[in-house]
Amino acid sequence: MSIKIGIMGYGNLGRGVEVAMKTAPDMELVAVFTRRDPATVTPMTAGVPVVSVNDVKDWTDKIDVMILCGGSATDLPVMTPEYAKLFNVVDSFDTHARIPEHFANVDAAAKAAGKVGVISCGWDPGMFSLMRVYANAILPDGKDYTFWGKGVSQGHSDAIRRIEGVKNAKQYTVPVEASLNAVRKGENPELTTRQMHTRECFVVLEEGADAAKVEKEIKEMPNYFADYDTTVNFISEEEFAANHGGMAHGGYVFRSGKTGANGENNHIIEYSLKLDSNPEFTTSVLICIARAAYRMKNEGQTGCKTILDIPPAYFSAQSGEDLRAHLL
Amino acid sequence: MSIKIGIMGYGNLGRGVEVAMKTAPDMELVAVFTRRDPATVTPMTAGVPVVSVNDVKDWTDKIDVMILCGGSATDLPVMTPEYAKLFNVVDSFDTHARIPEHFANVDAAAKAAGKVGVISCGWDPGMFSLMRVYANAILPDGKDYTFWGKGVSQGHSDAIRRIEGVKNAKQYTVPVEASLNAVRKGENPELTTRQMHTRECFVVLEEGADAAKVEKEIKEMPNYFADYDTTVNFISEEEFAANHGGMAHGGYVFRSGKTGANGENNHIIEYSLKLDSNPEFTTSVLICIARAAYRMKNEGQTGCKTILDIPPAYFSAQSGEDLRAHLL
Repeated sequence: MSIKIGIMGYGNLGRGVEVAMKTAPDMELVAVFTRRDPATVTPMTAGVPVVSVNDVKDWTDKIDVMILCGGSATDLPVMTPEYAKLFNVVDSFDTHARIPEHFANVDAAAKAAGKVGVISCGWDPGMFSLMRVYANAILPDGKDYTFWGKGVSQGHSDAIRRIEGVKNAKQYTVPVEASLNAVRKGENPELTTRQMHTRECFVVLEEGADAAKVEKEIKEMPNYFADYDTTVNFISEEEFAANHGGMAHGGYVFRSGKTGANGENNHIIEYSLKLDSNPEFTTSVLICIARAAYRMKNEGQTGCKTILDIPPAYFSAQSGEDLRAHLL
Repeated sequence: MSIKIGIMGYGNLGRGVEVAMKTAPDMELVAVFTRRDPATVTPMTAGVPVVSVNDVKDWTDKIDVMILCGGSATDLPVMTPEYAKLFNVVDSFDTHARIPEHFANVDAAAKAAGKVGVISCGWDPGMFSLMRVYANAILPDGKDYTFWGKGVSQGHSDAIRRIEGVKNAKQYTVPVEASLNAVRKGENPELTTRQMHTRECFVVLEEGADAAKVEKEIKEMPNYFADYDTTVNFISEEEFAANHGGMAHGGYVFRSGKTGANGENNHIIEYSLKLDSNPEFTTSVLICIARAAYRMKNEGQTGCKTILDIPPAYFSAQSGEDLRAHLL
């Protein structure tokens, strides 16, 4: 019997979940839910009904796990606790500082309803969090390093676009190669913000805008750019459209730690991701988490969970026996 | 209240567990068990009793988790099911092909006794297994690559030492850099055994031995060397003692997989370990698994488990709240 999945919200993330489900033999997409007029939404999967969020209560018996495909800023803080009253839910809430508060809200709702709600799943928070927890536990005497990129930072791109005279902009976060290598060699460097990442900006100006003024404004912007080595490239709208539409991203998590009676042995754990599509990798993780949520619910668990609470075998469609025989 | 740990077997691995426990604030070493005369064994930790294995039954109420520090070839297949009748146990059984059989034996014993037995914990099997399972689940359409080294292979070193005329030998398994880089670039190469690893041998000859004959015998040895590019270095006993006593090891696990409606996006997940001390890293993992075994037992779980069944948060001495606030 397959796991019945609902997708709540049919934007980039929702469509990504639908695509990722193609490779999940144990799952079935039951319905897509939207705040828009359902008649205006056409899923890729033939025959899947599109349902207004207003009718979501009619589906509580038909869906095992609802995957919530909303944004972290305003959607998920409201959606996840709300839908955890009706469904087992999974989200990709990624505002690190607000996770404890979000956890508490989802936990209360899910426990009261006897549901499981798994929050903050993706790659950071998500797989990177897992790697930090494993590595910190194994090497308690050590240092953590997380580098991101090369990839687009939506927040920094938005910040540039708000500057007068800027028509369009993309900002790439790039890890500093020399620092990566120093960490990899076990040098345990103390790295400043500037030594960890550089910021590369590609900017299309409005006609008649003052390039020098825009560049200065970017480079001196507090929090976003002032603490970094920033390069600003002015390009045409054509070049922007041709070369800066990609959604590649990635990053590195390191733990450099010591063991031994006198701390004489050093160990480096490195985990890295090189992703052609940031949203498609995120949704591929969400699918695994939905499978795990279903299993945890069937075990009798309720309340809010994170990726840190999930037995790794629950990610996989394979049986424990198969995993032990082939992947252990 | 701290977790009461027993160490069964006081060789390299047992001593490693004792050292690693120094960084575990939530654990207490209660006793060391040995097959030798207890009077001949002196633990590093002051005041820890050394007990004969013959008296182990007197300790069932005093120990929460027994860490079994025996070898995989002959010790653990017998020890783990036997002690799982008396204690919650953890082992580092690493004969991949025999894991299903070992699992079944430990499962039967532990279930009958209401205990938890966690087998095959270390880095491979262990952390590398975890990485394979996570990455296969997230990217079902893809390829796995596991490389080991640079590090000593005990089995290959032993095989060389059995050759007539060889006084001592160390064999290093070395991953082929060009193949690592091809995988890292997403080229998804089909790699032969020869293309994945080379074998570097350092050999001390008996007086009067025929170097050319020994070299030929090594390079043509089936299974061990014939399928590899092997280099043989003859060195003096002094050089051997000075330069080849290290226990460094490491390796790489890759998953290269595709997503997208037409498989148009590629993703690379890479996990690597660079370890100054192979046994100390292994025992650092064992300590985390002992903590997890204790928690699973307290939850009411019984039977045989592997690292694939353990919620990651159970590795850590920190609370779920702390992990969510600082590492998620």
